[in-house]
Amino acid sequence: MIKIDYTNVMAETIGERDGILREELLSFRHFIVDIHSKIQKEKEKKFFFTKLPYQDTYEIEEYASYIRKEFDYFVLIGIGGSSLGAQMLFESLTWLNHNHFDFPKFYVLDNVDPEKFEAVMERIEIEKTCFNVVTKSGSTVETIANFAIVLDILKQTIGKDYKKHLVFTTDPEKGFLRAFGNEHGIKMFDIPPKVGGRFSVLSAVGLLPAAVVGIKIDQLLKGAKKMDLICSIEEHVEHNPAYLIAVLHYLANMRRGKNIAVMMPYAQRLTAFVDWWRQLWAESLGKDGLGQTPVKALGTVDQHSQIQLYRDGPRDKIITFIQVENFERDLKIPENIPEEISYLKGHTLSEILNKELLGTKAALIKSKIPNLTITLDEINPYNIGMLIYMYELATGFSGYLYKIDPFDQPAVEEGKNFTYALMGREGFQQKLEEFKELYKEKYKLEIQ
Amino acid sequence: MIKIDYTNVMAETIGERDGILREELLSFRHFIVDIHSKIQKEKEKKFFFTKLPYQDTYEIEEYASYIRKEFDYFVLIGIGGSSLGAQMLFESLTWLNHNHFDFPKFYVLDNVDPEKFEAVMERIEIEKTCFNVVTKSGSTVETIANFAIVLDILKQTIGKDYKKHLVFTTDPEKGFLRAFGNEHGIKMFDIPPKVGGRFSVLSAVGLLPAAVVGIKIDQLLKGAKKMDLICSIEEHVEHNPAYLIAVLHYLANMRRGKNIAVMMPYAQRLTAFVDWWRQLWAESLGKDGLGQTPVKALGTVDQHSQIQLYRDGPRDKIITFIQVENFERDLKIPENIPEEISYLKGHTLSEILNKELLGTKAALIKSKIPNLTITLDEINPYNIGMLIYMYELATGFSGYLYKIDPFDQPAVEEGKNFTYALMGREGFQQKLEEFKELYKEKYKLEIQ
Repeated sequence: MIKIDYTNVMAETIGERDGILREELLSFRHFIVDIHSKIQKEKEKKFFFTKLPYQDTYEIEEYASYIRKEFDYFVLIGIGGSSLGAQMLFESLTWLNHNHFDFPKFYVLDNVDPEKFEAVMERIEIEKTCFNVVTKSGSTVETIANFAIVLDILKQTIGKDYKKHLVFTTDPEKGFLRAFGNEHGIKMFDIPPKVGGRFSVLSAVGLLPAAVVGIKIDQLLKGAKKMDLICSIEEHVEHNPAYLIAVLHYLANMRRGKNIAVMMPYAQRLTAFVDWWRQLWAESLGKDGLGQTPVKALGTVDQHSQIQLYRDGPRDKIITFIQVENFERDLKIPENIPEEISYLKGHTLSEILNKELLGTKAALIKSKIPNLTITLDEINPYNIGMLIYMYELATGFSGYLYKIDPFDQPAVEEGKNFTYALMGREGFQQKLEEFKELYKEKYKLEIQ
Repeated sequence: MIKIDYTNVMAETIGERDGILREELLSFRHFIVDIHSKIQKEKEKKFFFTKLPYQDTYEIEEYASYIRKEFDYFVLIGIGGSSLGAQMLFESLTWLNHNHFDFPKFYVLDNVDPEKFEAVMERIEIEKTCFNVVTKSGSTVETIANFAIVLDILKQTIGKDYKKHLVFTTDPEKGFLRAFGNEHGIKMFDIPPKVGGRFSVLSAVGLLPAAVVGIKIDQLLKGAKKMDLICSIEEHVEHNPAYLIAVLHYLANMRRGKNIAVMMPYAQRLTAFVDWWRQLWAESLGKDGLGQTPVKALGTVDQHSQIQLYRDGPRDKIITFIQVENFERDLKIPENIPEEISYLKGHTLSEILNKELLGTKAALIKSKIPNLTITLDEINPYNIGMLIYMYELATGFSGYLYKIDPFDQPAVEEGKNFTYALMGREGFQQKLEEFKELYKEKYKLEIQ
């Protein structure tokens, strides 16, 4: 079960300067009906991610249980949309100490930071490791660089049988990785061509790693399906959670000047959910000079770091809290504590956590900072499936509000091309000239 | 050695709409001379953190080596300014796998998330654990709650000798923790009363944990001293790194509308540095409707998540990159790689990482997004000491620019008081009434 409480975003609660009027929300009704029908028609096309909850997961489940049987370590080599989803599922839906006590241990090689690479390598035993290389294009620099080194290590350590230690998740036809996999007979899963990286968590990109670490992916998809069902039926913004999230953020941004969207779960396990959402929100909607900057925070930790700014700094934020009602484990403050701190007596840690959230919300209301709260009865695959689908649809829907294409990322190419040029890749000579033209180091200060 | 390259913040490079004119920078000269002399006079008062590099660390070093000898686990119980600094030192200055292979293993109990508490407890052996309870006020809710449970566990497991497993870092006189420590004869270190939590990393707050995990704290202080020396002598904004950082950010914020400050290291180990800086920047300067929102990013990972937004979204950001020239370990892409990816051949991972940074910078210059780069020749205690002091002084200095007190955090109290009220603490009855007045749940949506 999930609940969305948006009382504190409304003008009734925090005033018209910062809050949204119910009339404003409702004024989007006709527009929404229009977008709604467009989305229904796009479900086989640009909104193809909406089809993922209905896929047959037999092959994924089968292969995952083979991996679980054969290997002790599962290392995902991928970055951005190819890793954030799996990382989010792993951190949200396994116990925090999974990698300490359970198998297969799960690691991600995303960056090309050599120390991170070495750190992961030190933790695994190559002979017992399955590497899942994930890239839609099949040629992402970081992924291919990490893969090239891993391939070399595998061949040296395992010999001919190295292929058994690899599984690729990539485009069904195109790209270097697919060609390499075909040539060498490596097990592969498809990323549906119509699904972009940041919308791909419910494809094999996220589901294979999730199944490998023991997450019930059928429950995950069940939650997503439930959300799809509700969002397909409900055209009314007050009853459609995805549209509601989208419109509230859009209004806060474009009519109240909130160019920052904070997401602040009060649960350690949900921090990676925020990283996943950051990409979704930023890369989909950050274009043509528009879009909100997503900011990651964590309760209660950031009460001691960011709340001063959120309450008393510029009025440029809308905050989403995520609250968890029931934790898997809980602890009680003992009875025999000193008098000075006796107000804590008998409370559980989760009670304190959630009362701190309430206290923070009250303080924000008082400062008229718009905030909404998503409450989960517990962190489980069903609820996370609902949230994933809700935010994906809210993002796709927001594209219509902002009048931009939420499924492209044109501004990312430029930096890649400069990098290719700097690495001496063929065909990028002109880009290198452009770089030399642009890049100077004139104003500098050095301290020995 | 650290280098600051701010060429790409200047109007010469990215134009006057987004870039700073050299005249603007220089126009602060007289103002800075004035602030400079004020700071020199405040060094024994509000700017007391400037004295920390000169402290005698004998007692800390001695006690740290006792802890290293006696214990296998060192758990810091603290939050915000009491934990972020130590966490930053630990993550920046020990090997990424320290906790996998080295002793004492270091953990932080900051949050009151019960699952995190249990996760840490599962990883340690109580008999071999030293708990460092850190709170300036001596009564921080999260810290006291976690401590109360730990104390109970200690008494049950260890019995009378539980005291040997505790060391407190707190105000030399005031607060519950100091009183408790006095009463029960527990080893304690002082937090200088004139140093606020977020400026306390170079006191025992950060230095004791750092020394325990084997960091050379003399080198750390040496770097800080070096930075203090330069910043005490140089009144010219172009030669004083702290003032330069402060003025550039201030101008970007107040004259170019950049209400967001991104910090994006290209090094895994520096991510916790960003968390430390986030608190410093946000809590010090986020007041009276002013201040920039600090945003944490990581290269290259966030090229695949945030760069689309940074380049093509709203022009509301100034970005600080942190670059590392030499990593402790490095790897080379092997020679025998497929033709399609041969451009990677022979490059090291750190080369690729830093060329991606260069490519990203060139793309940002092209989009006229202001960005500066701090380059470290390597990640070592001396350089980190310089950075810490530089950002602390830049923050204190910025208080004068914004005309706010960078050392208080008045907006944090409100939420705490509501929380006390909700927990039934004596004397907060009226606050509870106020809460009931303020807090409603009217606009809700629930999905089963």
